[in-house]
Amino acid sequence: MAYMENIPYDELEVGRSACFSKSLTEDDLVLFAKISGDVNPVHLDEEFARDTLFGGRIAHGMWTGSVISAAVATVLPGPGTIYLEQNLQFRRPVRPGDEITVQLTVSAKLDDAKRHVALDCQVHNQEGVLVAGGDARVLAPAEKVRLEKPELPMITIG
Amino acid sequence: MAYMENIPYDELEVGRSACFSKSLTEDDLVLFAKISGDVNPVHLDEEFARDTLFGGRIAHGMWTGSVISAAVATVLPGPGTIYLEQNLQFRRPVRPGDEITVQLTVSAKLDDAKRHVALDCQVHNQEGVLVAGGDARVLAPAEKVRLEKPELPMITIG
Repeated sequence: MAYMENIPYDELEVGRSACFSKSLTEDDLVLFAKISGDVNPVHLDEEFARDTLFGGRIAHGMWTGSVISAAVATVLPGPGTIYLEQNLQFRRPVRPGDEITVQLTVSAKLDDAKRHVALDCQVHNQEGVLVAGGDARVLAPAEKVRLEKPELPMITIG
Repeated sequence: MAYMENIPYDELEVGRSACFSKSLTEDDLVLFAKISGDVNPVHLDEEFARDTLFGGRIAHGMWTGSVISAAVATVLPGPGTIYLEQNLQFRRPVRPGDEITVQLTVSAKLDDAKRHVALDCQVHNQEGVLVAGGDARVLAPAEKVRLEKPELPMITIG
């Protein structure tokens, strides 16, 4: 059984850093279109996408945002965190087969009473190219939490 | 057949506004966990979530972000838009069964040569409660485009 463990506010130090990686599959493009409602063919139709300036299908930019949010929610600070704000700059396309790595770094402890924390967010692909960056503001958990990672059900497309 | 039509840069006027609505299903919680990697039980396990301060399962905050991105990409400016930046403030939880409506408003035409446009983004639930807000910066399309909306394949969970 896999577990997620958080880092409570009192244990967070400026400069503390953590990484979270995720690969993009062709199925993810379909699933993201489904849940967001963004059915643009640049994400779904290889033939159409080949004739765009991207030269092939690319991820929805906010897929990268969703992986940043997963890093915040599962790793730093992890379970019990409440997401307050996120700024994102989309720099380069992400393509099926790419693996992106989110690096989060605690940039400031903003408010000890409210437990507000600022996180620097940098996302690189497997070639070390910066694909997105930004800053998050979160309400960090007060208490240590260790949770079993739920198993997701099977998802079938088509 | 449904179509998506964009609004090219030259036709965009400050104050122009458009809406895009999407309902959150229980399946969406599973699919968002799958594609993002955020498997926190507050999104997946009703029994666990009932004992949190939210009192039940809630959407991943970035699901709302993904619906904003869909509004930008399919409605205003629509197909051909390149997403540059997004700032998000998460205000209130969104729950399965909720329908959210993204209202986008052109707040500035920032650069005629680069076709950069700023959009104000406000997201309300079916009760009129503001659940998220923010600003987007996009590169608007130069040319009118009208595209068939691709049909998504069937997605089965479990």
